[in-house]
Parts: sequence; C-alpha cells; structure tokens
Amino acid sequence: MAANRRFLLVRRPDGTPVPDDFRLETVETPPLAPGQFLLRNHYVSLDPAIRGWMDDAPSYLPPIALGDPVRATTIGRIAETTHPDYPVGAWASGLNGIEDYSVCQAGGFTTLVDETAVPSITNYLSSVGAIGVTAYFALLDLGKPQPGETVLVSGAAGAVGSLVGQIAKAKGCRTIGIAGGAEKCARLTADYGYDVAIDYRGKSREALAEEIRAAAPEGIDIQFENVGGEILDAGLLALKPKGRVILCGLISQYNSEPQPAYNLWQLIVQGATMHGFILTHYIPRMAEAIPELAAWTRDGTIRIDEHIDEGIENALPAFLRLFDGSNRGKMILKIAD
Amino acid sequence: MAANRRFLLVRRPDGTPVPDDFRLETVETPPLAPGQFLLRNHYVSLDPAIRGWMDDAPSYLPPIALGDPVRATTIGRIAETTHPDYPVGAWASGLNGIEDYSVCQAGGFTTLVDETAVPSITNYLSSVGAIGVTAYFALLDLGKPQPGETVLVSGAAGAVGSLVGQIAKAKGCRTIGIAGGAEKCARLTADYGYDVAIDYRGKSREALAEEIRAAAPEGIDIQFENVGGEILDAGLLALKPKGRVILCGLISQYNSEPQPAYNLWQLIVQGATMHGFILTHYIPRMAEAIPELAAWTRDGTIRIDEHIDEGIENALPAFLRLFDGSNRGKMILKIAD
Repeated sequence: MAANRRFLLVRRPDGTPVPDDFRLETVETPPLAPGQFLLRNHYVSLDPAIRGWMDDAPSYLPPIALGDPVRATTIGRIAETTHPDYPVGAWASGLNGIEDYSVCQAGGFTTLVDETAVPSITNYLSSVGAIGVTAYFALLDLGKPQPGETVLVSGAAGAVGSLVGQIAKAKGCRTIGIAGGAEKCARLTADYGYDVAIDYRGKSREALAEEIRAAAPEGIDIQFENVGGEILDAGLLALKPKGRVILCGLISQYNSEPQPAYNLWQLIVQGATMHGFILTHYIPRMAEAIPELAAWTRDGTIRIDEHIDEGIENALPAFLRLFDGSNRGKMILKIAD
Repeated sequence: MAANRRFLLVRRPDGTPVPDDFRLETVETPPLAPGQFLLRNHYVSLDPAIRGWMDDAPSYLPPIALGDPVRATTIGRIAETTHPDYPVGAWASGLNGIEDYSVCQAGGFTTLVDETAVPSITNYLSSVGAIGVTAYFALLDLGKPQPGETVLVSGAAGAVGSLVGQIAKAKGCRTIGIAGGAEKCARLTADYGYDVAIDYRGKSREALAEEIRAAAPEGIDIQFENVGGEILDAGLLALKPKGRVILCGLISQYNSEPQPAYNLWQLIVQGATMHGFILTHYIPRMAEAIPELAAWTRDGTIRIDEHIDEGIENALPAFLRLFDGSNRGKMILKIAD
C-alpha cells in the first residue's frame, strides 16, 4: 500500500481544458489480485490524442470516464508484483493513467522495456514510443517514400513531425517542413535536417500554397499532415500526380470545431490518395518498428527533443503546451525520480 | 469537303454556362494530311468533366482554348481516310469536339470500335465508354470490394453511380444508393439493384448521416462519392475501420466554389483511405475493362440507361441537364443519324 496521487477528469472540457475539469486526489493503492503488478509511474507521455478521449464522443477508444484518471501512456518501475515474469524494479510501459501508481495485468498492454537499448528511458515515450512508431508506420507503410521524392510535413517541429522529417531524410527524400514562428523554423533546418522551413504564421491559404510551390516547383510526392485546415488545403494545391497525403493529426481542431478542407478536388485531379493513420491498427506490428527506432536513436540518425515538465500538479499546464505551441519537443511529465 | 457545324467555346463561363459562352459556326472541313482520317460524329458524350475544361485553371488536361469546339468524347463513322487501317464506314471513338466532323490522327487516341460487341453503338459512350471504365477501375481497383461488404454510392442514379451499384452487386456486395427525389430513388432499387435507396433532398448533414447509419448499422466499407460536400461528410460518419472512400466526382461544386468537407477526422479515427480517381491514369489499362464491360452489357449484368437528346443546336441545354438533374441516364447528344 502506498499513497497514490491521481489526476482525475471530473468534467468534460468545453474547448480548451480548464482547471475545474480536473481534480487531484490521493488514495491508497489497492491490494493486488493474482496476475497483477503495481507500476510506479516515473514519466507520463502527454499527447494531443488525450484531448479527444476527454470528449463523450465515439472514437477508437472509449471516452475517459468522469472520475477516472486521465488516460496516458506511462513508463515506470514495478513496485509490487504477483507474477514472476514482472519482477520488482523492472521498467515497464503502457497505456495507464496520470497517477503515481497503476495496477497492471500480467500479459496485458503494459509491457517490459529494455532500458539498455536506448540512451534515456524516456525515449520509450518519444522516439521509441507511440510518436516514433506513428512516424515510422505512417510515413513508411502508408507513404512509401522513394529516394529523391519530396516530402512536405506540417507541424514539422512537433514530436511526430520532427521524426517524420528525419526518417524521410534517412530514406533519401527532400524534406520541407511547416511550423509556426521563426524559432521553430530555425530548429527545422538546424536540428531536424529539413531542406526548407516554411513559417505559416500570418499567411493566407493562397500565400502559403505559393510558398510551398516555390519550395517544390515540381510538386509534393508525400504530404504528411499533422495540422489540417488551411495548412492541409495549401499543401493539397502542390500535390504531384499519384501523390500520397498522410492524415496523421488535425491539431488545429482538437479544441474546436472541425476545420473545413476545400481542396479535396486535388485528390481527383492528381489521382492522389489520402490515408488516415491510426496507431491502434499497427499494434500487431510494433515489433517491426521498435528495434529500428531504438537503433536510430542510439546512432543519432534521429534526434529527439524531449520537453520534460515536473510534478503531477503541473499536469494541466504541461498538457496545454501541446496546443499553445510553447513546448520544445515531445511533451513528457516527470512524476517521480 | 463537307459543311462542319462546330459548337465553340467563346467565353469562359462564370458558374453555370449560358448561351453567350458559346457559338455555333459552320466551316468547311479541311483537306486531310497524310495519316489523318475524317470522323463523321454521330453521338457526343456529355460529361460533368467538360465543365472543368471550360475554366482557365490547371488540370489534368489543358483548358479548352477560346474559339475551339467544346472538347468531348464522340463516336462516329469514318467519312474520309488516308490510312488503310482506318477504312471509310468503320466506327471509331475518341476525345474530339462537339462538331459534325473531327480530323483524327491514325494511331492516335481515336480508336476503332467493334459494333458487334455491344447491343447499341452508343454503349461505347456509356457502359463500355469512359463512365463504364471509370466505374470499373474506381470501384474494383481502388475500392477492392469483397463479397458481403457494404458499398454506399452517391449520385447513385447517375451515369457512373448506376454502374457502380450494379458492379458492386455483381461482386456480392450490399449496396446503398443516395439520389435526389422519389423518382430517382425508385429507379435505384427497381432498375439498378440497390438494396436501399436514400433521398438526400431536404435533409441536413446530420439527418442524412442518421439515415445512412440506419441502413448500415455495422457501417460502410466503401463510400463511392460522386457528389461531395454535405453528402461526402454524411457518409464519412458511417465509415467502418479501414474503410475506403473513392472520390470520383464532386458534381456539387462543378459550377460553384469548392464545397467544404468537415469530417476528414473520420479517416484518422477509422484508419481509412480516400482515393482520388482520375481516368487518365488508367488509359494504359483500358483493355482490361472493355471486354468485361461489353459482356456485362450484352448479358444484362449491367443495365445502362442512356438519355439521348438530338441536334447539335441543343448541346447547351443537353449539357446543363447534368447539373439540374433532369437527365434520366447517361447524357448523350445525337448529331447525325
């Protein structure tokens, strides 16, 4: 038994989440049933998808129930166990909650991880975690990039976008990144190897399309979309025949109404394809991606920036950085040393 | 030499075309150069795509030049020839103009057709022509329908839509058609074998989505979209995981501004794919489709309704039927007996 602080969802947010939507409670950890183990969470992955799970809307996972901890991927060490395959002290990671301790099932979705395979254990929440696997499968399995092709990435300085740009470069592509503000754009070329950085701020759909076309006069082979709305529309105008659009995220609308897309006619004119990417469809194939992502992280093929805020009491402001753009890398919350 | 009436584009239409955008002129046919033959056009295929070619906008084909005949697929008999492979009296079809006579190049895109393979020579402009080949490749090559799957078709009473529904049925699918008005909806089930007909008229996006979900409680495997806008959005809400959306036409916006799509997030949530279809990418594969389409037309597997108006002087009102919905089948203009 231990004191367990848990960050609960107590009201469904209307737009951007506010403090009254949540409550931090402290309860005792329950006794374990046979086959269970108790995970002491050290780090929590904060991802835009969490915002979707806060709504009472049908999705690929059920909504977070009111009164439950906010669902998130965590990584920690096993603190108590009833199963020999899950020894105390071992690192494990899975979809749990923002809480000090999570009760997990042996053989379930919280799996042991090899701390020696990565430079930092937090990499299992970043380049070797959901965002790494997302970038890997969305780009390689759906986009099928070929050497010499041009890849356009929106949200290019973000967690997924920065990895997509680097994997595309590793596959011999030319990369164009779109981000908001001069500082992020500087990181695109300096840190993530983008050939061209485009700042979308203050630009109309038409001006942005013009700038994309100037950067890729022969057009875009793969448009990797993390944002949606006007940025999606601008990229569509530069698509090449048989282009592939990867719809990976629509962060422009996570806290608001859906943003319209006006330029789907370009898919017809170019005989192009738009693939929606959902990570859950790739769970059976995780083992294809993780060793390669770990190797790329070790050898520096991919650089991952992690923005680590501390303290479970800072869960909400840390989460909101995803939407105001103030994070500088994959957003992680540290809740134990 | 013969008198050649030609239906010229003389001004780019603003929205719906009007009579002053065109002029009917009569000129003499020119002498043929070696390798050319003269086609006496009997029938002209009127298709929504022609409206796009009237705009001065980049597309998969250049715009129709002002002063040129309106571009269209025609079928006719060879009236004069310079080449032994193209004898006088033979039937041939290709992308020419709305005019009594077209000068064609031997070995070019106007090809001989076998009048004995089809019940009516006009079938080469309908079930065995561009719309047949469109329905065939867009559904079978992009949609890959499996027996027992559910296929939703918008514009289901239209030229492409009626064929898509019938080909999907022949492949063992359940078919749901969307059309405007009770009379068209009655034809969906009576003539084209649709299992369910849905009338979109007077319904909000939400009401339409509700009706689609009621008709397909387990969801839609393939959404075959000929219309766009609110109908596309409504269908997206009923999409199954790994669903396929075929974007074949967006007739709702041919004479107006692009209609927005709000529900692309469904592609992400369902891990679904949207394929734009453009016929030109399938030109090298025409020979795969044409014999099977001709056989299906002969044996009644597919029923094709042709709406044949007469007289080159009626080209504009006949064309406009495509947009006001007053045609009752594939729109064809007969310009010679």
